[in-house]
Amino acid sequence: MYSFKNDYSEGAHPRILQALIDSNFVQEDGYGGDQFTQKAIELMKEKVGRDDVDIHLLSGGTQTNLTAISAFLRPYEAAIAASTGHILTHETGAIEATGHKILSVETENGKLTPSQIKIVLELHADEHMVKPKLVYISNATEIGSIYTKRELTDLREFCQEYNLLLYMDGARLGSALCSDDNDLKLTDIPALVDAFYIGGTKNGALLGEALVICHDSLKEDFRFHLKQKGALLAKGRLLGIQFYELFRDDLFFELAQHANKMATILREECSIAQFSFLTHSPSNQIFPILPNSLITELQKNYSFYIWEKIDAKNSAIRLVTSWATKEEEVRGFVEDMKRQLQMH
Amino acid sequence: MYSFKNDYSEGAHPRILQALIDSNFVQEDGYGGDQFTQKAIELMKEKVGRDDVDIHLLSGGTQTNLTAISAFLRPYEAAIAASTGHILTHETGAIEATGHKILSVETENGKLTPSQIKIVLELHADEHMVKPKLVYISNATEIGSIYTKRELTDLREFCQEYNLLLYMDGARLGSALCSDDNDLKLTDIPALVDAFYIGGTKNGALLGEALVICHDSLKEDFRFHLKQKGALLAKGRLLGIQFYELFRDDLFFELAQHANKMATILREECSIAQFSFLTHSPSNQIFPILPNSLITELQKNYSFYIWEKIDAKNSAIRLVTSWATKEEEVRGFVEDMKRQLQMH
Amino acid sequence: MYSFKNDYSEGAHPRILQALIDSNFVQEDGYGGDQFTQKAIELMKEKVGRDDVDIHLLSGGTQTNLTAISAFLRPYEAAIAASTGHILTHETGAIEATGHKILSVETENGKLTPSQIKIVLELHADEHMVKPKLVYISNATEIGSIYTKRELTDLREFCQEYNLLLYMDGARLGSALCSDDNDLKLTDIPALVDAFYIGGTKNGALLGEALVICHDSLKEDFRFHLKQKGALLAKGRLLGIQFYELFRDDLFFELAQHANKMATILREECSIAQFSFLTHSPSNQIFPILPNSLITELQKNYSFYIWEKIDAKNSAIRLVTSWATKEEEVRGFVEDMKRQLQMH
Amino acid sequence: MYSFKNDYSEGAHPRILQALIDSNFVQEDGYGGDQFTQKAIELMKEKVGRDDVDIHLLSGGTQTNLTAISAFLRPYEAAIAASTGHILTHETGAIEATGHKILSVETENGKLTPSQIKIVLELHADEHMVKPKLVYISNATEIGSIYTKRELTDLREFCQEYNLLLYMDGARLGSALCSDDNDLKLTDIPALVDAFYIGGTKNGALLGEALVICHDSLKEDFRFHLKQKGALLAKGRLLGIQFYELFRDDLFFELAQHANKMATILREECSIAQFSFLTHSPSNQIFPILPNSLITELQKNYSFYIWEKIDAKNSAIRLVTSWATKEEEVRGFVEDMKRQLQMH
Repeated sequence: MYSFKNDYSEGAHPRILQALIDSNFVQEDGYGGDQFTQKAIELMKEKVGRDDVDIHLLSGGTQTNLTAISAFLRPYEAAIAASTGHILTHETGAIEATGHKILSVETENGKLTPSQIKIVLELHADEHMVKPKLVYISNATEIGSIYTKRELTDLREFCQEYNLLLYMDGARLGSALCSDDNDLKLTDIPALVDAFYIGGTKNGALLGEALVICHDSLKEDFRFHLKQKGALLAKGRLLGIQFYELFRDDLFFELAQHANKMATILREECSIAQFSFLTHSPSNQIFPILPNSLITELQKNYSFYIWEKIDAKNSAIRLVTSWATKEEEVRGFVEDMKRQLQMH
Repeated sequence: MYSFKNDYSEGAHPRILQALIDSNFVQEDGYGGDQFTQKAIELMKEKVGRDDVDIHLLSGGTQTNLTAISAFLRPYEAAIAASTGHILTHETGAIEATGHKILSVETENGKLTPSQIKIVLELHADEHMVKPKLVYISNATEIGSIYTKRELTDLREFCQEYNLLLYMDGARLGSALCSDDNDLKLTDIPALVDAFYIGGTKNGALLGEALVICHDSLKEDFRFHLKQKGALLAKGRLLGIQFYELFRDDLFFELAQHANKMATILREECSIAQFSFLTHSPSNQIFPILPNSLITELQKNYSFYIWEKIDAKNSAIRLVTSWATKEEEVRGFVEDMKRQLQMH
Repeated sequence: MYSFKNDYSEGAHPRILQALIDSNFVQEDGYGGDQFTQKAIELMKEKVGRDDVDIHLLSGGTQTNLTAISAFLRPYEAAIAASTGHILTHETGAIEATGHKILSVETENGKLTPSQIKIVLELHADEHMVKPKLVYISNATEIGSIYTKRELTDLREFCQEYNLLLYMDGARLGSALCSDDNDLKLTDIPALVDAFYIGGTKNGALLGEALVICHDSLKEDFRFHLKQKGALLAKGRLLGIQFYELFRDDLFFELAQHANKMATILREECSIAQFSFLTHSPSNQIFPILPNSLITELQKNYSFYIWEKIDAKNSAIRLVTSWATKEEEVRGFVEDMKRQLQMH
Repeated sequence: MYSFKNDYSEGAHPRILQALIDSNFVQEDGYGGDQFTQKAIELMKEKVGRDDVDIHLLSGGTQTNLTAISAFLRPYEAAIAASTGHILTHETGAIEATGHKILSVETENGKLTPSQIKIVLELHADEHMVKPKLVYISNATEIGSIYTKRELTDLREFCQEYNLLLYMDGARLGSALCSDDNDLKLTDIPALVDAFYIGGTKNGALLGEALVICHDSLKEDFRFHLKQKGALLAKGRLLGIQFYELFRDDLFFELAQHANKMATILREECSIAQFSFLTHSPSNQIFPILPNSLITELQKNYSFYIWEKIDAKNSAIRLVTSWATKEEEVRGFVEDMKRQLQMH
């Protein structure tokens, strides 16, 4: 049984484990005061092309989202998110638990547009309603789509005009940036958003997300927020070592490229087999629509999520690839699929 | 420069790193649904001697405290803690941030007693005040003292009589249980408290605390709380693998014994040198009171915290040892201390 | 200029003011410990036909909703509400500010049905999502519709089957119970919901909502919640005196009947004039769809909200009547409307 | 049985009730948009001598404190209060329920000093602790003492130097300003604090506290906070009418003077009878220390709180007077006291 269920099924890239071993007995200060974290942060500032950003390393996506968003908003301010947004659907009300409403927007493809946001703003006119303040986007989105530079720039300009903060959840930012469809560079992002995070957990780390705060007004006292939310690891080095390893050369991008390449094989083979897709997803998650009978056969050797029932005979499944996905297993899946198709 | 600043200065015990390497490419479900976590939990249930407890693995102490305490209390209920309690002093108001007041009790030695708690209860008589509901203790305490079985039993009986929950922060539980003064067994604890955690971060793990919920009424839906607080790691295996390794034989206890042994050397040598202590601390933290001139000399080769000014000429320092503390460095510290004393 | 903007444009019914004067110099305990509050509560228990409910008097609807809902839910539990629900739209995220998500349901007429709720339940399957626990309904709804006894009974049975709490916002309960369409008695309600409130502010009081807690498990320590949310008035008598006056005979119902009668005149005359309505609303709020030109004319002498643009030439307006609405003004509005229609 | 238990035992001053009657049928907008509230606010700006403050009318002290303090602080910031402070002792953790710790300071007389606050600041050095940000004082304090202009000015300067907000709870501000010991004018206050409130509930209103926000940075969007906390009354006029009546001439001060005069009689007679006091309290609350036997006798005809046991034979009681306290009852109390003393 091989799993395409998600991109966190294995441990860490071996180079990361090796870096942990190599540094293991160096004594360091706790809570991110260690040299590894400091070096990682300096390195990442270079990689994003900006000295003046603040970078903090956290353990996971939900933790990063809830810590950042609750730090950025005043009590009556709300976030706006696509209805597919992770904070809306799969974080157990973590944002609301910090006191903030999330305003949901139905989208075609998981991506928000200025005109959609404008409708929300127009509906929130006075103090009897929350005040929309932060636009939450994911790149790649939860359904595999990615933002173009043009789309992001449009959002940026809109947010500035309406005094909104723009926050990008980058749990799968590596995959987005390495997509064949992508025209965005990591160095473009700090000018386009007020804060974003670079996901490590889903791109080769044991755990870790690097929150990059670009807007000056959001930086103040952020470590207080981290500590208060339980997000400061005593052995902060654990995060620093990993991010340093991911970024000291191009490992971060190589891992994402591999994940995307594996997804591309699956996508192309599904296309060749005349299957359609729930959504256009040029990253490491694809959602082909398959006959239920085929799904049942594939489930004998592969695990994956059935995402959505399409009609009586077909369902969309989700296939996720990662830095660790083995090409031979991808090829095996394709072969199995073809074999099943020939048999029917 | 050798550090006695804390017990999280190094990485993890090598066996733990090895276990991560060995398991690295096994595909597993996320969020604690992996076999390693399940095995670790089963094993720890054996070690605490109770099948019917619930065990959850979290990343750090503040996270564990805030998740557990906010889950256990209703909005108007408060915790009671010694004024030295970690939740009162060093968690940036994390408990209050979840909505709950902590009632502070001055103690001699960091340990709470029934009579002290009773005074708090008597002061909280009606709905104009919070309702004290949870007694927070640390074992070992933040100043190195430990609870005897008798003391814990007295607290237990008092809490039951007054319908209070008893929660033990076990960030340094290993050191407490391995102290020469200790008469408490790990298997005693589930009957004595409603919930407690077994600290991994300060006893050889990269990160990780194992929360053990003993009282049935506190167990329900706890994973919702974990997720909502950002405490569910996608690669939950990272915690499971470590705790399994710590408990599959006696590694957890061996590491704590080593830490204690190193502290004992320091404690005994300070006693021989006629130094007194801020407090009796039979665990891995000691607080000798030294002349400031000696402290200045020692700081040239060793890092540690100056804990408290005692008088114009003397201060208490904190020396913390751990699983990773090297005996040669401890001996070196002692020699340096003796040498300095002879010179003056 | 006469206002049909809302049902809280005037002060209180004169009998209520007189009751305040009559009792003014009687010395009483604070915070609801006064005889007036106690008598009002006893009286209201009779009126709802149940000795075993708990009744608390609060100042306003938002305060009542936020205090009750946050008291009833555990941190990860969510409310379900119609998308028109007051807690979703016009309380500035007050429920979210207490930490709880509200799951929104699109409805035809502001009323929730079991099948709609079931869909929400099915989408919330595990600990990565909030747990739907409380169904919030308003009666009358925010758009003037009311629940039949059959509809409420169906909701009740569904909630019991799925272990959900059913909470009714009764800001306009008087109007609902006095509607010509209504088949529900006040004495029916305690068996049909877990908690509800009887609105005073919109039915003749200066301020005041009476929260009735029917389900035993929700009663415990509720006064702690009240105090913590700032909802315990020092001079609680102010609420007790008013509710006693409203319920010592049938004043509460007479006032609602008057409001409904005034709305009925407006509704019928709009119907006679061949205008349609945004929604069927047999209570004290109606939403006729009028030509914009007519609206402009009417606005010269009457104030009311333009609720929704229907097409280029027509809009729905909201007309609200109350215990204080003068029939002569209603007749005047009708005459003005007719006159305008004849002129065009 | 006559009550000296508190200053909210009766209803409202008759002029206030009359004002409610006079305005009762005037139609007004809700939520403070009415002319009465606007006029009251304009008038109070004159009375405090500053056009540029923002004034909001709320229902009660706990509500005002929790709304203001949670609006003024960022999540990790804390308040500092005397251990006798109302927010620490008698508000059921309302501030903590909004997420903020309160740091308690032991004082002699309920009043904070710069040197006491400085100690707190020095103990809070980094992000592992909350950040003290707001100094909460009460004037008059909960034990009847009042601040001199010099003391307030010192606090002010200290707070500015250390970038702290100074907030004054004025539940009994009228009594403080009318004390024989007072040298502070209402017009002095806006320059000395960042925000304060003028208590109506304890000085003749049915309910109502007027929050005055002096510091510009605290004003923004405050009505959102009000609504979110359930603090916006639909019939906001109820508050506006009362404050207008209290301040359209000197009624507010006359009522406080009467309360103080009644307390002075009690204070002086207790002094003449050679009784000492728990604390110097030149306002409308006094705390004489009486023999328990005398207390028992007095309780037959008067209700009051026994505040604190002093020794085996004596206790401090609290006597509170108000605008409504009858001089004949005060005289009666004194006579009874004297009679009892003569009998023993």
